[in-house]
Amino acid sequence: MSSSSTAGRTGRRGGENTTREAIAAAARAQFAEHGFERATFRSIAAAAGVDPALVVHFYGAKDELFRAVMDMPAEVSAAFAALADGPRETVGRRLAELVVAALERPLTRSIVIGRIRCASSHADAAALVRETVLRDVGQLTRALGGDRPDERAVLVGSQVVGVALARYVVCVEPIASLEPERLVELLAPGFQLALTGPLDA
Amino acid sequence: MSSSSTAGRTGRRGGENTTREAIAAAARAQFAEHGFERATFRSIAAAAGVDPALVVHFYGAKDELFRAVMDMPAEVSAAFAALADGPRETVGRRLAELVVAALERPLTRSIVIGRIRCASSHADAAALVRETVLRDVGQLTRALGGDRPDERAVLVGSQVVGVALARYVVCVEPIASLEPERLVELLAPGFQLALTGPLDA
Repeated sequence: MSSSSTAGRTGRRGGENTTREAIAAAARAQFAEHGFERATFRSIAAAAGVDPALVVHFYGAKDELFRAVMDMPAEVSAAFAALADGPRETVGRRLAELVVAALERPLTRSIVIGRIRCASSHADAAALVRETVLRDVGQLTRALGGDRPDERAVLVGSQVVGVALARYVVCVEPIASLEPERLVELLAPGFQLALTGPLDA
Repeated sequence: MSSSSTAGRTGRRGGENTTREAIAAAARAQFAEHGFERATFRSIAAAAGVDPALVVHFYGAKDELFRAVMDMPAEVSAAFAALADGPRETVGRRLAELVVAALERPLTRSIVIGRIRCASSHADAAALVRETVLRDVGQLTRALGGDRPDERAVLVGSQVVGVALARYVVCVEPIASLEPERLVELLAPGFQLALTGPLDA
């Protein structure tokens, strides 16, 4: 899609927003698929069907672009915060439903995978992963009131990272082609144990 | 260390082996730290203190070098195979001890992290990760005789991948600086659940 034809249909502001969002979607996909270095202004612009100069015009330097497009949608953080409200004995399943839904939705899947993929070479990405684990998951483990909330948060976070890589990056069967409902069932007991179970062997 | 000074001390064959191993160690570390593309003959040679031509001379093309240095030591596979022999109710703890020991040892840590880091852009690395999960971990889950051995193997494998990234790549506290013994305790219950527990929520 070209920005000018879109602008013709929807007026200048609508066209700009559509172009901005097309660039953001392309950037997220490139960061998730290729990592920080190999996602270039040129590859992102080509995927969005725009001129590389327009990417710079809208988003500035590459680390600013990364930060702008890798923000987790507010409703995901809100859903996280609400998890502690339900019954404690089924919180693992509710977390599994939220995680699998986020991984199945292209927007949030690109954000999760893009942060992980870029974390090894880009300090901002590593900081975002740490922040999600310790703030969002940590908020849940603290609300649940068990011992060692930070260790529990990292246990849950590392299980999410591992399953995201196994399913979408390394593509290990049978996890890679499991139905979402079945993946929820598979993850729920481990999440429940990490959130509320005894931590010592 | 230069190969000629080593050769002078230990004789030609000993010197060659020392140089080969220095190159292998440098290559593993570069693959683990920078991923497949950014680990170059030049960066590997510089880290090993040799001429880039010597890396090519000993190992050939980069994918051949990767395959040669990322082989898991035979004793690790043997230790994996032996895990099913002990009591079933403590197999999670024995697996956690084996995994943490492998991650604490520089040689095997570089192999595990290097395979994971390179899996997103290098098909051979992804194949090695899948092979480890489905053959080595799968051999254990099949020996334990529970239902859905392949799903259990991927659950365990993804927990290992997640904790390796959290501890050594993204460096999320408190996991990053946890004592090895404490990390074993933290991982054992989740491994036990994935290996022998009920899989459905």
